Parts: sequence; C-alpha cells; structure tokens
Amino acid sequence: MLFFRIFSLSQMMMRFDGRLGFPGGFVDPRDASLEDGLNRELLEELGPYFNTLKVTEQDYKSSQAREMPQKGVTHFFAKELKVEEMETIEKEAFSAKDHGLEVMGLIRVPLYTLRDGFGGLPAFLSNNFIGNSKSQLIFGLRTLRLVREEHIQDAIWSSQNIQF
Amino acid sequence: MLFFRIFSLSQMMMRFDGRLGFPGGFVDPRDASLEDGLNRELLEELGPYFNTLKVTEQDYKSSQAREMPQKGVTHFFAKELKVEEMETIEKEAFSAKDHGLEVMGLIRVPLYTLRDGFGGLPAFLSNNFIGNSKSQLIFGLRTLRLVREEHIQDAIWSSQNIQF
Repeated sequence: MLFFRIFSLSQMMMRFDGRLGFPGGFVDPRDASLEDGLNRELLEELGPYFNTLKVTEQDYKSSQAREMPQKGVTHFFAKELKVEEMETIEKEAFSAKDHGLEVMGLIRVPLYTLRDGFGGLPAFLSNNFIGNSKSQLIFGLRTLRLVREEHIQDAIWSSQNIQF
Repeated sequence: MLFFRIFSLSQMMMRFDGRLGFPGGFVDPRDASLEDGLNRELLEELGPYFNTLKVTEQDYKSSQAREMPQKGVTHFFAKELKVEEMETIEKEAFSAKDHGLEVMGLIRVPLYTLRDGFGGLPAFLSNNFIGNSKSQLIFGLRTLRLVREEHIQDAIWSSQNIQF
C-alpha cells in the first residue's frame, strides 16, 4: 500500500481525526502513477484550483517505510508555490469535495519563533500530528532551506520542553 | 485588562503563535462595550461578513479571572450559527485583515470520536491550546449540549492517555 503527503510551501491542515497533517492520501488502482494519485487526492482536499498547478516527479522528496498501523511506504512531495497561488488555494479550499469531511481547515505553519522562545514554530510542533508528518515537516523545512538549521534545532528542543 | 473569546458553533483557529484558540482579543479604550470590542476583533479575524452577524449580550456565557501571564478577566461568548453562516465565514475568512498574520487558518472542531477511541475529539483536545481556551471549548460543548456529557468525559480521559 502506498500513500503520499505533500508539503505545499508552509501549508498543512486540521484533519477529520483531530490531528494535523499534510494533504494527500492513499494511491488507488485507477491511478496511473504516484503523481496521478496524489493530484487526485489534492484535487479532493484542496479544491479545483489545484488542478491548474499539479505535482510532478520533480516535486518528489523522499520515501519512508512503515510497519504500523499497516505496512506501507509514505512518499513525500513538496511543491513550492507563489504567494498568490497559496492564497488562491486558501480562498477556494472551502469548495473542495472533502472540506468539512476529511479536511477541517487549511492552516499555515509559523516559520518563526516569538520572543518568549515558545510561540511560533516550537508551539506548533507540540501539537498532535498524524503518522510521520511532523518529521516530514522538519525534513521539508530543512531540505528546502525555509528555516535556518540552528533555528530548527532550537524549535525542536523548545517544543519538547514547552510550558502548556 | 479585559479580553474575549468567542465560540462560534464548532469553529476555532490556528493562531500566529502555533497554538489553537478562539477568535477574539483585547478590549480597547475606543470600544463602547465588551460586545463592541469583540465584534471589532471578530471583524478583523473572520472578515467583513461577520459584520452582518454580530455578537450581543445574549451570547455571553462566562468569565474567568487569571493572574498569568498578566492579570485579566477572560469573557467567553458563544454564538450559534446556521450552517450556511458558518460556511460563508469559512469562505470569506481569507479576506480578513488578520489572515496570515494573527490567524493562520480557521478550523472546525471534530465533535465525534472515531472507532479507535482516539481519533476525533480526544486527539483534537491533545493539541496545544492558548490560555484557557481548551476549558472554554469543553465548557461550551457541555453547556450548549453539543456533545453528550459522557462523551465529553470519555474524550477528556482519552486525550490524556493518547498514543501519539
């Protein structure tokens, strides 16, 4: 069983199960390729505008095998969007087929840390994430150089020592 | 110092600081009343459509004194919306003044528990909430009878014993 996660700039979502995660899902026998399946899922979750963008093989970043809760491989894609593209996705997401069902809302990830040392990325990382999506987020921020390496390290450390 | 939180049906938001909370904010000297200040904040955070709805004294639910991080009183308002009203707020939220600044995205709260006993409300409650907004959420679900009392109790218990 294969499934995907996409990391679209700094966009994640609140899922139907109360956890944070990336848009994506399971590949289907009718999908001709990983990318086809991913684009189908993104269309369902982000709305029809995403059809004009599409993820390609060039957006592939990494894969991870897992045993639990079922055997599978997670494929991680990341696509850099222009600000206007991201804003259009946000604007049209309410008309997506899965809005209010699988997707409880799209959110932006704060890529900064506030002066108290917790607010921002550290506090965000202490939320409840599905599967390996937190490590995919950190991997994405690192490899796409969206956040400086020492800032990522500090944020991970702070998120584990956070005052709730 | 006074500030407010509104509990609009099952709507919360991801905040700029990486935590979940309700729309709302601090009252201001220019606000003629608590409700005026709250409606001003909701306009900034939810967008111009909210101007046609407005919170009134009838929507007041409770107050709570706090000492930390500064002395203050939190006033909690809850307004029941029609589904179409909630959907219009979601649709227009991207055009709110604070979208992408204070508000990283509006989300719906899952008011159910999935068959695994964790997914849904319990997993949602194990996210990172600002201030007393988690207890306000539970108070709101309880007093507005949106969720059955035994379901709330189970969800709180499960959220404290959750498998991440």
